[in-house]
Amino acid sequence: MYTVYGSAKTRASRVIWMLEELEVPYVIEDVFPGTPEALTASETGKIPALKDGDQMIFDSAAILMHLADKHGGLTFPVGTPERTRLQSVLNFVTDDMEQPLWTAAKHSFVLPEELRALEAVMPALHFEWTKALKTLGRLLGDGPFLMGAKFTVADIIAGHLGGWAKAMDFPAPEPLVADYIARVRARDGWQKVDAMRKAA
Amino acid sequence: MYTVYGSAKTRASRVIWMLEELEVPYVIEDVFPGTPEALTASETGKIPALKDGDQMIFDSAAILMHLADKHGGLTFPVGTPERTRLQSVLNFVTDDMEQPLWTAAKHSFVLPEELRALEAVMPALHFEWTKALKTLGRLLGDGPFLMGAKFTVADIIAGHLGGWAKAMDFPAPEPLVADYIARVRARDGWQKVDAMRKAA
Repeated sequence: MYTVYGSAKTRASRVIWMLEELEVPYVIEDVFPGTPEALTASETGKIPALKDGDQMIFDSAAILMHLADKHGGLTFPVGTPERTRLQSVLNFVTDDMEQPLWTAAKHSFVLPEELRALEAVMPALHFEWTKALKTLGRLLGDGPFLMGAKFTVADIIAGHLGGWAKAMDFPAPEPLVADYIARVRARDGWQKVDAMRKAA
Repeated sequence: MYTVYGSAKTRASRVIWMLEELEVPYVIEDVFPGTPEALTASETGKIPALKDGDQMIFDSAAILMHLADKHGGLTFPVGTPERTRLQSVLNFVTDDMEQPLWTAAKHSFVLPEELRALEAVMPALHFEWTKALKTLGRLLGDGPFLMGAKFTVADIIAGHLGGWAKAMDFPAPEPLVADYIARVRARDGWQKVDAMRKAA
């Protein structure tokens, strides 16, 4: 049995979505980043974290890769060209797509108030987000997923970010990318997480 | 024979350092990000990229993981707790350590001039960098490297960032972290890359 630390309303939703895709049992313990409880669950104090037996795992992308390798789902074996490209695409998603959104969140409510500069930085964030979406469209190609026919961990994080961007009023994607984001978010796995979010 | 796309003065230096650690032959082709040549070398147009046989690989962290798995060096086998922690630590380094520096670089010379807001954003970047260094110290523990006795891909990227931060006048680390950064940068692999940088 896995324990997910963090609520379905945070980036822990990616881990819950992954566990739903893999159809393995889990429990959720809601802890807040930076608290003593979070520092027990995660070496960095960041949330989400996952408990797998004796191991406490931090960072959502690393947790997804761990689960994918362990259960042989939503990834490709190490040593294949597909695995290498998946890692590249996943890093693009967590760097280029995620950072504009996360930076906006930090300047909205995470950083100490005197360090926030949301208005000054927002034009750059919208610019970077739009550029990232254009590159995402190129990576997607004919789809239907970022790695072609197979739904992978990279689609979970890209799909999560697509919804986050909409909630933050970031520029909308072009139709093909918007269709892709809608397609991954229509999956049963996300629909279950989304119901948890609305019930929370 | 590998081909590295990007100069030793950029983040391609990480890939060159890795190849030096693995003692495998390579050639360097200097291309600039976003150019037609870069878009041929890398699906995202970002540099560095690596050509391995027929495969063009993008993203420095993904390139390092690919090379580590292929040559069985500077990593741990998939399925071990050490591999999972390495991925978490690596993601911390490329997210929490790298983003403040990269954001400062973007607001200095990468973004279109009218979108830059370096002065407004710098206090937050220094705050985030200092916080990341504190967490790095916790991850390092008794060291000597981030994964303990074994030098890994995470140390290459952390060591590269340590030098970049100094060049950008970011706040200096505490002594134990400063010693760690000096220790990894003293390795023959980085010393060779550094000589290339100075000669370029």
